[in-house]
Amino acid sequence: MKLASLKTGRDGQLVVVNQAMDQYVAVPDIANTLQIALDSWQSCEPKLQNVYHDLNAGTLTGKPFNNLHCASPLPRAFHWADGSAYVNHVELVRKARNATMPDSFWSDPLMYQGGSDTFLGPREDILVFDESWGIDFEAEVAIIVDDVPMGVSIKDAQEHIKLFMLVNDVSLRNLIPGELAKGFGFYQAKPSSSFSPVAVTVDQLENYWSDGRLHLPLRALLNDKLIGQPNAGIDMTFNFGQLIHHAAKTRPLCAGTIIGSGTVSNVDRSNGSCCLAEVRMLEILAQGKASTEFMRFGDEVKIEMLDDTGQSIFGQIHQKVVPYVYSETGEQP
Amino acid sequence: MKLASLKTGRDGQLVVVNQAMDQYVAVPDIANTLQIALDSWQSCEPKLQNVYHDLNAGTLTGKPFNNLHCASPLPRAFHWADGSAYVNHVELVRKARNATMPDSFWSDPLMYQGGSDTFLGPREDILVFDESWGIDFEAEVAIIVDDVPMGVSIKDAQEHIKLFMLVNDVSLRNLIPGELAKGFGFYQAKPSSSFSPVAVTVDQLENYWSDGRLHLPLRALLNDKLIGQPNAGIDMTFNFGQLIHHAAKTRPLCAGTIIGSGTVSNVDRSNGSCCLAEVRMLEILAQGKASTEFMRFGDEVKIEMLDDTGQSIFGQIHQKVVPYVYSETGEQP
Repeated sequence: MKLASLKTGRDGQLVVVNQAMDQYVAVPDIANTLQIALDSWQSCEPKLQNVYHDLNAGTLTGKPFNNLHCASPLPRAFHWADGSAYVNHVELVRKARNATMPDSFWSDPLMYQGGSDTFLGPREDILVFDESWGIDFEAEVAIIVDDVPMGVSIKDAQEHIKLFMLVNDVSLRNLIPGELAKGFGFYQAKPSSSFSPVAVTVDQLENYWSDGRLHLPLRALLNDKLIGQPNAGIDMTFNFGQLIHHAAKTRPLCAGTIIGSGTVSNVDRSNGSCCLAEVRMLEILAQGKASTEFMRFGDEVKIEMLDDTGQSIFGQIHQKVVPYVYSETGEQP
Repeated sequence: MKLASLKTGRDGQLVVVNQAMDQYVAVPDIANTLQIALDSWQSCEPKLQNVYHDLNAGTLTGKPFNNLHCASPLPRAFHWADGSAYVNHVELVRKARNATMPDSFWSDPLMYQGGSDTFLGPREDILVFDESWGIDFEAEVAIIVDDVPMGVSIKDAQEHIKLFMLVNDVSLRNLIPGELAKGFGFYQAKPSSSFSPVAVTVDQLENYWSDGRLHLPLRALLNDKLIGQPNAGIDMTFNFGQLIHHAAKTRPLCAGTIIGSGTVSNVDRSNGSCCLAEVRMLEILAQGKASTEFMRFGDEVKIEMLDDTGQSIFGQIHQKVVPYVYSETGEQP
């Protein structure tokens, strides 16, 4: 099934979206928000699946679905941990900032804890104070788990995956070197991320989901120009089971925890890249300098995943970069 | 006023606790959980203050308050960012792992994003799989804000502080060097933190709260031996206004965001330390090697802050370190 959260209140209104993504129904009798559904997933999921079935069968009539009204499936979450599972991407980005990569990165996953209290909706502007911060997108796959006990095995970990989404892990590239040099990891360099209009259960992924990886191209477009469509199932060094196992080594994970794959990246460069930092690095390697700039105010990024028939699985993330003006309330002019 | 969350469900039951911390009342007509109250703080706070007033005046009779029944004031939160505002502590801990400290650390705050989905209650055991991970406590002051707009000024930032707590930022010291070497910051090295039984509004702090700092000793005891009681108002290089300003540079902060001070530490060493890593560093500097060990299974840590009359302001964090056994459900034998 496909689930979305319409923008209302702080946690949105959970709705079930039909297969064609043109109709939705709210489900207040089951759960008002996706977090509430995840908190009792075992009892909520079959009820939500029934609604999804009826909506597709036409025995239930929905309202017109418009992704402009969508918050992220979890408008705010209690835990957002982003892995960096495509290690060849890490290697390239490190080269781009003249940093070497230890061999251990091929066996021990990289993961950072991201801000999860103010996610952006899939169609919301990326507000940035200063264009010179090096605004970049990162197209990734993400999963949502139910409660995961501390110390979960890799084998058990995968059973906890309940939902799948796409994510745009917005990054401020020029803030990263200074921040990483301080040793505490990313904080200011990673502003609010945005997620796809819908989160889906595994039944929507058919046989594309196997080995803890999602075997489809992830498309990233900048101002309607395709930047890349690497296959998310290829060159993912650590699968989602391994990422969950890593995240839960010293603490349990609460239902609703989101884990990201990191920027999708294939060793075969013919499919392009899922972030501009990687494009720039490849330019440096090929031509001695980067000719692609980071995003500017007014630029638009689109991220989506199509199945083999061209049907969008998660809907499209489509965001514009807009200058931010400070006011005491946060309201923009 | 003083607020607590009794253990029930995932987000606890918000209760108002009296000044003497021996009685409480639930306030379901105002807000069932502290997050709900924070989401509408402007309307909820005066109502909660009225209940606090009536409870202290005896016009409202409470039930007996027992901190064993407390979850953390926010049992799970959407954002937990921990600063490291006592820079002389950072300098010492760095020395302890043979790392140098850049001068910029005196002007640019260190902050990491911590796990906020599975906080421990003030009396809950610290479950750790492996004693050799170097189990340490870190006694800190923390604040909770309402909605903070991106780019908030230092001056405006302090107005957003709504509640104060103590925190035990449990740290696995022997996992830190490997994790920091990877460059993405702490993740596995920082298991679930715990917070004081009550969170309090500024009226409970009298004139101890000034300049964005809380001017009282923070006491940390290990197995009932005082490890330290440095004054949280002294040597705090960055005050809470500066920490909030830093946290909100590139993204807004959602109501309920918790910001920690980092381990309290005074340059004057006569008041001892608020974590064992600092004790060990001082031993190395004085005697050439550390004689104090990190915490072992069975060890108990207590953290509290008393006012000038000896009255506890936040109640006591009191936790035991206990070996963790993995099971698929997370249940402990």
